[in-house]
Amino acid sequence: MNQHTIDVGIVGGTGYTGSELLRLLARHPRARVRLLTSRGEAGKRADVLFPQLRGVCDLIYSQPDPAALAECGAVFFATPHGVAMGLAPALLERGVRVIDLSADFRLRDPAIYRRWYQQEHACPALLADAVYGLPEVHRERLKKARLVGNPGCYPTAVQLGLLPLVEAGAVDNSQLIADCKSGVSGAGRELKLGSMYCEAADTIKSYGVAGHRHLPEIEQELSAVAGGSVRITFVPHLVPIVRGMQATLYARLRDPGLDVQKLYEDRYRAEPFVDVLPAGEVPETRSVRGANICRIAVQRLGGTVVVMSAIDNLVKGAAGQAVQSFNLMHGCDERAGLDAPPLAP
Amino acid sequence: MNQHTIDVGIVGGTGYTGSELLRLLARHPRARVRLLTSRGEAGKRADVLFPQLRGVCDLIYSQPDPAALAECGAVFFATPHGVAMGLAPALLERGVRVIDLSADFRLRDPAIYRRWYQQEHACPALLADAVYGLPEVHRERLKKARLVGNPGCYPTAVQLGLLPLVEAGAVDNSQLIADCKSGVSGAGRELKLGSMYCEAADTIKSYGVAGHRHLPEIEQELSAVAGGSVRITFVPHLVPIVRGMQATLYARLRDPGLDVQKLYEDRYRAEPFVDVLPAGEVPETRSVRGANICRIAVQRLGGTVVVMSAIDNLVKGAAGQAVQSFNLMHGCDERAGLDAPPLAP
Amino acid sequence: MNQHTIDVGIVGGTGYTGSELLRLLARHPRARVRLLTSRGEAGKRADVLFPQLRGVCDLIYSQPDPAALAECGAVFFATPHGVAMGLAPALLERGVRVIDLSADFRLRDPAIYRRWYQQEHACPALLADAVYGLPEVHRERLKKARLVGNPGCYPTAVQLGLLPLVEAGAVDNSQLIADCKSGVSGAGRELKLGSMYCEAADTIKSYGVAGHRHLPEIEQELSAVAGGSVRITFVPHLVPIVRGMQATLYARLRDPGLDVQKLYEDRYRAEPFVDVLPAGEVPETRSVRGANICRIAVQRLGGTVVVMSAIDNLVKGAAGQAVQSFNLMHGCDERAGLDAPPLAP
Amino acid sequence: MNQHTIDVGIVGGTGYTGSELLRLLARHPRARVRLLTSRGEAGKRADVLFPQLRGVCDLIYSQPDPAALAECGAVFFATPHGVAMGLAPALLERGVRVIDLSADFRLRDPAIYRRWYQQEHACPALLADAVYGLPEVHRERLKKARLVGNPGCYPTAVQLGLLPLVEAGAVDNSQLIADCKSGVSGAGRELKLGSMYCEAADTIKSYGVAGHRHLPEIEQELSAVAGGSVRITFVPHLVPIVRGMQATLYARLRDPGLDVQKLYEDRYRAEPFVDVLPAGEVPETRSVRGANICRIAVQRLGGTVVVMSAIDNLVKGAAGQAVQSFNLMHGCDERAGLDAPPLAP
Repeated sequence: MNQHTIDVGIVGGTGYTGSELLRLLARHPRARVRLLTSRGEAGKRADVLFPQLRGVCDLIYSQPDPAALAECGAVFFATPHGVAMGLAPALLERGVRVIDLSADFRLRDPAIYRRWYQQEHACPALLADAVYGLPEVHRERLKKARLVGNPGCYPTAVQLGLLPLVEAGAVDNSQLIADCKSGVSGAGRELKLGSMYCEAADTIKSYGVAGHRHLPEIEQELSAVAGGSVRITFVPHLVPIVRGMQATLYARLRDPGLDVQKLYEDRYRAEPFVDVLPAGEVPETRSVRGANICRIAVQRLGGTVVVMSAIDNLVKGAAGQAVQSFNLMHGCDERAGLDAPPLAP
Repeated sequence: MNQHTIDVGIVGGTGYTGSELLRLLARHPRARVRLLTSRGEAGKRADVLFPQLRGVCDLIYSQPDPAALAECGAVFFATPHGVAMGLAPALLERGVRVIDLSADFRLRDPAIYRRWYQQEHACPALLADAVYGLPEVHRERLKKARLVGNPGCYPTAVQLGLLPLVEAGAVDNSQLIADCKSGVSGAGRELKLGSMYCEAADTIKSYGVAGHRHLPEIEQELSAVAGGSVRITFVPHLVPIVRGMQATLYARLRDPGLDVQKLYEDRYRAEPFVDVLPAGEVPETRSVRGANICRIAVQRLGGTVVVMSAIDNLVKGAAGQAVQSFNLMHGCDERAGLDAPPLAP
Repeated sequence: MNQHTIDVGIVGGTGYTGSELLRLLARHPRARVRLLTSRGEAGKRADVLFPQLRGVCDLIYSQPDPAALAECGAVFFATPHGVAMGLAPALLERGVRVIDLSADFRLRDPAIYRRWYQQEHACPALLADAVYGLPEVHRERLKKARLVGNPGCYPTAVQLGLLPLVEAGAVDNSQLIADCKSGVSGAGRELKLGSMYCEAADTIKSYGVAGHRHLPEIEQELSAVAGGSVRITFVPHLVPIVRGMQATLYARLRDPGLDVQKLYEDRYRAEPFVDVLPAGEVPETRSVRGANICRIAVQRLGGTVVVMSAIDNLVKGAAGQAVQSFNLMHGCDERAGLDAPPLAP
Repeated sequence: MNQHTIDVGIVGGTGYTGSELLRLLARHPRARVRLLTSRGEAGKRADVLFPQLRGVCDLIYSQPDPAALAECGAVFFATPHGVAMGLAPALLERGVRVIDLSADFRLRDPAIYRRWYQQEHACPALLADAVYGLPEVHRERLKKARLVGNPGCYPTAVQLGLLPLVEAGAVDNSQLIADCKSGVSGAGRELKLGSMYCEAADTIKSYGVAGHRHLPEIEQELSAVAGGSVRITFVPHLVPIVRGMQATLYARLRDPGLDVQKLYEDRYRAEPFVDVLPAGEVPETRSVRGANICRIAVQRLGGTVVVMSAIDNLVKGAAGQAVQSFNLMHGCDERAGLDAPPLAP
């Protein structure tokens, strides 16, 4: 294993995924964050925006400067959609590895990107090289990747929950249901009425029922696994928690006698960050709070299989998974920086 | 309309449904709570247990005394399962109307009661006379009822959400899915580890996946409506809200072209407490907080119909619905005592 | 008592105090809201912004039109500071009664207004006529008032908590301490980072320690009561609740033997909306949720008296108190529209 | 520095402080938890009670066995009051170091212990040897300690907040005020009505106003520092957060011109776990969530000084501080096991 320190840049580190990258990388044995950029907060210390980082990180936001970023070994983009695809090509040319937490490099088809993100893709030629950063599917490709499109939070919970069934061809792929519940941090740190305390507290609300941007990404990846079309009814709900996401998944079994518990245990036995619960138990999101873990329970009810898949949307659903890909790309221990136990209660 | 005052007794008024009955009946134009009983709290004022009732209710808990209860015109049971069936027969003989908020008079088949509640039913002969207290289905029978089994909270949200589809024979009744999310007050006021603040806050957890007591009640009622077997995959989840419940329902349409919005609007147009939202909107539970309302949205996604049904589990899912039945039984305006607007935020 | 209906206008009804006025006035026996204005939302239905009002209020926001407002008997201003003082003079001239929930008519000294609100007062001549809308102090003046400056939420909790002591000259007025805890709705419905769910949940934070706009209002009123200078150390804290406020007040007793419990019970015996708790009990904010009540407990610890004063900041701290003043101004029962019991849990 | 591994026992590891010890020690470079005892849960795996520990800790609860505990180098007691004093003497005789998180070894005067804990102290002779585990005061004694009484959560926040003032003789020690706000985890994991979600959510409540067990401990320690009597008016409040505590402290300055900011910065400059915020800033509890940090802000308002002191009650207020003492007792780096950044949002 290569043991030198890797200089890291973070573009757009003023949101929750950015601050989470700072938290995780602060204890990473080989990564050192050298550059932290923000157009809006340039000149401010990160620990003024995020007082929890006092004593942990003394970086100051700078204006994003391609030349300075090109000095890094790896650059994370924790930016809104549309930013990474503007800067990535130049960085890649300079040999910088790029891990994009936005949607810019998740979808292979630029037409689908345009439809869901209302903009033309800036570098469609790179889409073929980009590796979708779900290590449980693409681990070997990630080890050699130069450009990673880090999955969204819903796609992570849903795909890890459905993978064993879809890989095994065990269910009717035309009528999968994903009833998802997300904490409010999934909506980011931007000001939005629906993210206000008095709007989101003490209530449950579904949203995006008619169509959510994370759906094409899920269908693209699961269809590739299935070798055919996979169709999902995807209904996200907002619940009053800060971090945490559960996907409750329903599928019709082709063979109602299938031992689904064994299927899942076998599939994920070697995975460092997927935990299949013993039969009869159910996950709760707080049991993964702050940790890069997906806990999964599976239950058969007649001909229907119910899968419960829980993650911390900011960690396994965003920054932690990005660090996991970073580790694979740089030959680090896959667990580096990701070994702090979850925080509960 | 008969305008005399009705003396009311509440047996077991120390839980959340009991205190909710006190809140609602305090402003009821014709009901007057005369008797409030509790084995454990006899001698204490209700407003010591429930300080929000200071100035609203000055009743003192007394030991449950059948003779005193028999002086009432109507008695509500807000007790654990098993209590009402012991006391109801004597009260009914004395001409008292009985509204039971427990499960004792919901199931028609005593064998099913025994299986789910682990006790023999004490008065199976009464089950045929008991009316299931869902006014949207049994309004005319409720007007003449002497004994009402008030529905559970999940059954209310699920049935009101599925009724139009099942009545119309519009969906495949063998593969209905009910993904339900409930606030913690649904678990009652008894001490349970899972209901502790530090266990229930900031987390999502499914429970009862392998089987929940509310399922047989739902299947009994919907099967009666369908005139045939209805099978539901029912997965309840606990989310950190105090009051509120949403059932997200998934069904396969027989005719994918069905105008589901119109179906729901037509079905519920005359209902005082069911609100079908305009197409494209979704309910949130806080919009019914404290009120006897079920708000429903419906959306077609390919061949699947998604229904979102939201109630306050303590009101339309318990005490409010019981008052609604009380109103029907006594010839009161169905809205009596139930006209305070929801409280949000 | 005069029994005709009073036409009411609400200027700026898109915030939490505005929606709360709509909720309370919907059940008021004599008030009828005819006009609801908003520059930003004109043309929209109020129940689209506030779905809890579906079936309760079918008003549509209109542009604020002085001529139309002048047709009302009374106009409430639920606007940011600076709006009411622009419109009030013309309305008062037309004989309209004005109740301002902003700070425009709370402070008697325009210089103090300028210092804290960074703008010149538009109609200083009216300040002498404006009555400070705390009925527990100014009831008789409110009955004849044309213009009312409705107190802020902190000032209500603090003044009601300290009044008996200050009126009696029982404490050292130079070193009063008010440690206040407020729910997030006190910050209003405007987008602010600190009011976001993920910023305000699961944390405690003091703010405005160096100076808060509500302080001069408190000192003005208590000094008037004391007949001399009253100085308060006022430290507000934000806690993760939606509604609710507690002021914990500390004062040094002149006579450590004073029967403070009796002092409070005597002072507030006749008040319909102040509830002095029995000795040894403490209030909790949820026991006043949704209701126009201030619950107060008082305890002597050595030479220090501790007072705990709890209100719902949107009701007794804003819209409810405004309706109480409205009732006094119009010869209604002081409880009209304010009789719904608190909602707990 | 001594580098061998230290075998650790935890008595009573089924509460929140016990699980927190497991979380912190799991990443400790020198401690290895060998023994975990519980009378009630013996035979169960710890990660069944605390699923967040799956993959982190595979220990099984055993019956507390003095002989087995005596094999450990150090034993933590995370038990209710009264347990440690029964077992500690035998362990100390066998050379085991004891760190008690209960109140058994905090108070020097057994009469005071009896008065507040309603039981006779079992080994009063040990009280003189016990070191009060607040490293910021007793660091040198802790390095040689065999028996440590770990401070309570309120005492930690209050003492760290007041120490600089009391040490400097800067304030009137007869009229200190501590208005404290605590999360619900401070009440432990035992079933109590007041700790239920529906009782503690969305409300603020003071408690223990007439006297709280943590008060004598605070007064004992601060009086020792002051060299004379210190009297505190101590009012705790429960707020709906899981972890976190803020003490807002009020004192009368002897010299109103004192530079309090400098006083605090000088006092705590070398402390690894006390963070004095820049002038004008205020702490929030989430900025220390999960971390062994006390953040303090100080502000002068006329002759009154206001101190805001924030900790995570389960870490710096309990398990983390116990590990800090463990580190000092065993010659470890004081930060060992305590270096994970706080978790926010």
